[in-house]
Amino acid sequence: MSDQPQSTQAGTVLVVSAHAGDFVWRASGAIASAVQRGDRAVIVCLSFGERGESASQWLAGKSLEEIKAMRRAEAEGAAAALGAEIEFLDAGDYPLLESPELTDKLVQVFRRVVPTVVLTHPLTDPYNGDHPAAARMTLQARILAQAIGYPGEGEPLGAPPVFFFEPHQPEQSDFKPNVLLDITAAWPAKLEAMKCLPAQKHMWDYYSDLGVRRGVQVKRNAGPNLGLPVDTKGEAYMRYYPQVTTVLE
Amino acid sequence: MSDQPQSTQAGTVLVVSAHAGDFVWRASGAIASAVQRGDRAVIVCLSFGERGESASQWLAGKSLEEIKAMRRAEAEGAAAALGAEIEFLDAGDYPLLESPELTDKLVQVFRRVVPTVVLTHPLTDPYNGDHPAAARMTLQARILAQAIGYPGEGEPLGAPPVFFFEPHQPEQSDFKPNVLLDITAAWPAKLEAMKCLPAQKHMWDYYSDLGVRRGVQVKRNAGPNLGLPVDTKGEAYMRYYPQVTTVLE
Amino acid sequence: MSDQPQSTQAGTVLVVSAHAGDFVWRASGAIASAVQRGDRAVIVCLSFGERGESASQWLAGKSLEEIKAMRRAEAEGAAAALGAEIEFLDAGDYPLLESPELTDKLVQVFRRVVPTVVLTHPLTDPYNGDHPAAARMTLQARILAQAIGYPGEGEPLGAPPVFFFEPHQPEQSDFKPNVLLDITAAWPAKLEAMKCLPAQKHMWDYYSDLGVRRGVQVKRNAGPNLGLPVDTKGEAYMRYYPQVTTVLE
Amino acid sequence: MSDQPQSTQAGTVLVVSAHAGDFVWRASGAIASAVQRGDRAVIVCLSFGERGESASQWLAGKSLEEIKAMRRAEAEGAAAALGAEIEFLDAGDYPLLESPELTDKLVQVFRRVVPTVVLTHPLTDPYNGDHPAAARMTLQARILAQAIGYPGEGEPLGAPPVFFFEPHQPEQSDFKPNVLLDITAAWPAKLEAMKCLPAQKHMWDYYSDLGVRRGVQVKRNAGPNLGLPVDTKGEAYMRYYPQVTTVLE
Amino acid sequence: MSDQPQSTQAGTVLVVSAHAGDFVWRASGAIASAVQRGDRAVIVCLSFGERGESASQWLAGKSLEEIKAMRRAEAEGAAAALGAEIEFLDAGDYPLLESPELTDKLVQVFRRVVPTVVLTHPLTDPYNGDHPAAARMTLQARILAQAIGYPGEGEPLGAPPVFFFEPHQPEQSDFKPNVLLDITAAWPAKLEAMKCLPAQKHMWDYYSDLGVRRGVQVKRNAGPNLGLPVDTKGEAYMRYYPQVTTVLE
Amino acid sequence: MSDQPQSTQAGTVLVVSAHAGDFVWRASGAIASAVQRGDRAVIVCLSFGERGESASQWLAGKSLEEIKAMRRAEAEGAAAALGAEIEFLDAGDYPLLESPELTDKLVQVFRRVVPTVVLTHPLTDPYNGDHPAAARMTLQARILAQAIGYPGEGEPLGAPPVFFFEPHQPEQSDFKPNVLLDITAAWPAKLEAMKCLPAQKHMWDYYSDLGVRRGVQVKRNAGPNLGLPVDTKGEAYMRYYPQVTTVLE
Repeated sequence: MSDQPQSTQAGTVLVVSAHAGDFVWRASGAIASAVQRGDRAVIVCLSFGERGESASQWLAGKSLEEIKAMRRAEAEGAAAALGAEIEFLDAGDYPLLESPELTDKLVQVFRRVVPTVVLTHPLTDPYNGDHPAAARMTLQARILAQAIGYPGEGEPLGAPPVFFFEPHQPEQSDFKPNVLLDITAAWPAKLEAMKCLPAQKHMWDYYSDLGVRRGVQVKRNAGPNLGLPVDTKGEAYMRYYPQVTTVLE
Repeated sequence: MSDQPQSTQAGTVLVVSAHAGDFVWRASGAIASAVQRGDRAVIVCLSFGERGESASQWLAGKSLEEIKAMRRAEAEGAAAALGAEIEFLDAGDYPLLESPELTDKLVQVFRRVVPTVVLTHPLTDPYNGDHPAAARMTLQARILAQAIGYPGEGEPLGAPPVFFFEPHQPEQSDFKPNVLLDITAAWPAKLEAMKCLPAQKHMWDYYSDLGVRRGVQVKRNAGPNLGLPVDTKGEAYMRYYPQVTTVLE
Repeated sequence: MSDQPQSTQAGTVLVVSAHAGDFVWRASGAIASAVQRGDRAVIVCLSFGERGESASQWLAGKSLEEIKAMRRAEAEGAAAALGAEIEFLDAGDYPLLESPELTDKLVQVFRRVVPTVVLTHPLTDPYNGDHPAAARMTLQARILAQAIGYPGEGEPLGAPPVFFFEPHQPEQSDFKPNVLLDITAAWPAKLEAMKCLPAQKHMWDYYSDLGVRRGVQVKRNAGPNLGLPVDTKGEAYMRYYPQVTTVLE
Repeated sequence: MSDQPQSTQAGTVLVVSAHAGDFVWRASGAIASAVQRGDRAVIVCLSFGERGESASQWLAGKSLEEIKAMRRAEAEGAAAALGAEIEFLDAGDYPLLESPELTDKLVQVFRRVVPTVVLTHPLTDPYNGDHPAAARMTLQARILAQAIGYPGEGEPLGAPPVFFFEPHQPEQSDFKPNVLLDITAAWPAKLEAMKCLPAQKHMWDYYSDLGVRRGVQVKRNAGPNLGLPVDTKGEAYMRYYPQVTTVLE
Repeated sequence: MSDQPQSTQAGTVLVVSAHAGDFVWRASGAIASAVQRGDRAVIVCLSFGERGESASQWLAGKSLEEIKAMRRAEAEGAAAALGAEIEFLDAGDYPLLESPELTDKLVQVFRRVVPTVVLTHPLTDPYNGDHPAAARMTLQARILAQAIGYPGEGEPLGAPPVFFFEPHQPEQSDFKPNVLLDITAAWPAKLEAMKCLPAQKHMWDYYSDLGVRRGVQVKRNAGPNLGLPVDTKGEAYMRYYPQVTTVLE
Repeated sequence: MSDQPQSTQAGTVLVVSAHAGDFVWRASGAIASAVQRGDRAVIVCLSFGERGESASQWLAGKSLEEIKAMRRAEAEGAAAALGAEIEFLDAGDYPLLESPELTDKLVQVFRRVVPTVVLTHPLTDPYNGDHPAAARMTLQARILAQAIGYPGEGEPLGAPPVFFFEPHQPEQSDFKPNVLLDITAAWPAKLEAMKCLPAQKHMWDYYSDLGVRRGVQVKRNAGPNLGLPVDTKGEAYMRYYPQVTTVLE
């Protein structure tokens, strides 16, 4: 709740990413912003994106293990650029299969990390089945982690808000942003993180343009009174549960 | 934007209410909360609810003018209990007719009051056509007031966020709250405002129960960590435009 | 409420039809069913469909007044075949313009007829703007007629349920039936009513086929246990307000 | 079909409840109503709610088996208070895992019980994954039980209507009631059933208030003409398949 | 893309059908049209519909294997009448269970057949769980087949458009057609294919009537200018991904 | 219908634009494409955008008439750059008021121009009320122009398809593109048309970036097989009525 005393304590952002690169393009502004204000950020990659999102490596004749190692290194570099911790569950991709076992691993992450905010993929993506699978397991794990009767270390979880980050083709994925995040201050860090993924250089421009585009919407929706700078950058999110607050603003 | 310097300045809440009583049942928690933290609150009643929401007065044989005077007095009392200003456009109800002239009056209110937050009815209500009509005119007036080319006193408006307050039968009105407002501190003021409407005594209980119900949801969605009191009270809102913020929380 | 004593009293079905022929194709099974069990049925045609739904007459060189007279005669014939009363408001079509005056005429109909059930067009039809206009005015008039403060003869209306009948292209009009009406017993009357509209002979087959199709769905959704006959006929409706009942069945 | 001769025969209501307590809070009005008019009611609890909905027992240090036994006893007590039969599939909760085996058990229940009406959870609940899982398996089992080729004892099922009962946070669960059930006569039985769950005493008030709230909506949607008593109580439902009927009312 | 040179090359239509008869009723017009203009058509039946859609055979006391053989023969006859190839995965029905293994078999079909167009069931069908299961696996297999990293023979797939064919009760299945296919020239072949399924003779009329009904909509939506014949026949489809084109028409 | 003989005849695209600049940013790729292949293109501007979309002119102290003249000249220049005809109805903006008179003017345009394709704004835009007003009048005029009984010169209209072009904030306007138009060949003309609006130079970049973004989606949805160039540009559209075709592709 935005103006409660406890919100001045450092929080913890947990980011669940289906593949090793997803968090970079879609949420690294939020991650860097959190770190910049003193929060902890923990990224969990369910897979390395080794089969579905490493086409150039396959074309180059790399082996599965080589690709996984390379993607891991890239993602670790990006996390470091953002000041975030990162871990990998190596659950496989294309398809990322939902299972009680993988969901349980996420429950244990929730119990251990105790996030105050959760970021993950949206529930719909007609172009990529792994993304909604990651979202469903994340939401289920968050609920299970709240139950005192669910076995595991640590205390039952509270009710951290969940935000879905932007898919590659937002309109086709029923992605209607209800939160526009001003990431202007975090922009240099996001650029640096993107550059840790040299194999997808064409994405740098695509997501830089998107940052500009969402920044225009930040300004448009904030109104001219706030005096936001002309080069405001943004990221778009969908809040899944209702916002709880003491101030309408 | 929640943590920008200017948000510590006093804001102004503008409430557009189709009938004289609507703001009391549905938004007086938000109004009292705003006043308690030093904001200005201005309520505009488009009508007195003289035809459609004064059944007991008609049954008692009162005249139209008597009913309007009585409803005005009640609403003025409630506004005073909340510490808010109030004005009446006397545009008639059942039906409240949309017109460019009435919309223009609202534009002039926007230009004069310069709200930082706007509250009004939601866009759908199968039980009451006046409520969506009020919402449509409010949204249109807000847009017109933003245009420098639109004639009128004062400066063009910024982009104040708009929140829809709760209709009488929320599910039937496609009302899916995305903001739960903690109004515990404002609850005594809301009770006092409701008691300014003695002709609708049965509504006191109905909306007191609703405050409890929404309070349970405040607690459920905030999580146990925040230590909210057992008697937390709430009001539900739908944010119409995306939230602009620098913090995901 | 289905099993309350008063529901054994004769009811009154009010049908609001944008054009003179609409009620025949889309609701005459329900009308004849009501009459057969002793209810009163009153049809109000807002226009004769003189401009938009009388192409063959225009091609034949008829004048506007001739066309209106012909359509009136047809509709009166169809109403007689169904055992229903009919009246015409002659408000013009293509476009049927919404206005407070026309809505007020409908309010007075509601106050005079005191319907226990209301049938009209659905709120969406991308192929015909008159149909949603008729629906919006009907819904608004029903609400206004409920208010004691609204001027007019008669007592304030109760809360009669509203059913939307089927548009010409249901899926395109977001028409998702939630009521399937068994009109097998009323089928001969519906056929007779359709034959009162000889200028649209091609519609006879189209709506006879539709009766069969909806009849198949009646059987499919009722289940085989009910022993419905193989030639069951149906009409599809959308209930607009929640059903109130004492029995889930 | 509401006025067919066979509907005067006694029916059978089958209630599928994810956890041992769900049916009490959400559907016991409907269950008691059915029993009061001579129908049979059978409740199937897929789990005891032992992990996810027994927080106070876990805090009190009870073992899993103790908790399951206690929840079973409570649910049996509530069923007895309603005059209903009850059985437990003990499939585990938090998570309640969907499987062909558990679905098959439900098919065999359908074949054995031959319900004329089915009640279960709605398909969406962002706060509880077990509820939609129960709904999906119930719907699937109902379809499988209709197929003569599906192995099992008994005759293929007909097409009993399905009603979803109310989730804890209806708007967030896309729960838009299209049936409001008058449970005034069953209210004392519902109160008694709720009191069989002493560990959740705070829920008594919450669901008593909800009964009042839905009762107000019963009266509002039925209209004043029906003369419903001031203390009318209600439960809200979503009908999943279209209603089949011979009367629009 | 409609007017690119390569579209004049012969294409390949892949049809994924949950049961052996589905493609006949719902897509044989499209299949025959494709064959008539020189395209290849390949039908994959995931099951024979042996349990869920062979009621008359079960009533006649046939064994499971007899039924499967009979359904296979019927489907082969229908495919031959359309000029299409057909294969059977024999994965079982009622329920058709989703699994990585069955999805992988479909991936291999995609890699081998290299379709330029894909037809399958829509994602929602409250009356039949096998149909959405088939659709989900088809969509997932199409995505997996696009990934160079997914193991299998053949080249990675391009992005063939996907069309959902019409379910038995379209409105209840949220089926809103956005493509109306003129199948007039293919109509005789569709009739012949339907006659290969003599056990469901009542369906012949039902789907013949549907062809007429969709044909009326073809004419209505094409406009009178095109001079379509009075006996135009149609099939309705939902395009799942956006159409890519160089001409708006 | 894409492969009917008559589609090789030259068509006529009618574009209805609420303000003088809208067609440039949002539809000039489609307009130039049509002209390049020999179609006629006619643009109707309902207003000049003089009040709502000319902020810089108002700040520069220009009069209403000066602004209208300037915007007209800009739009004429852009139309010339595209090879399109243009006309202005001067109906006023902010607000653009819906009226039967203005709708009738559009009907007469439809009857005179006889479009084979219609482009206009989408029906929802929370940031600009004029855009949906223009869309509603365009759709209504198209329907009225189809009726032989509606008075006016010329023949009744056929059923030209309608496409909505992209609003400024697509997700917030429920804009889900179902057509992606490849405008690579028309891109230079679009750039030239945009440069005719020098007062909105910042929009050049914004809509150039959008052309790139939609071009990426053209390639993604067309698949790699088509060999589209790396600098493919696109525009996004929503088709309002179902596509009628003889080929699924």
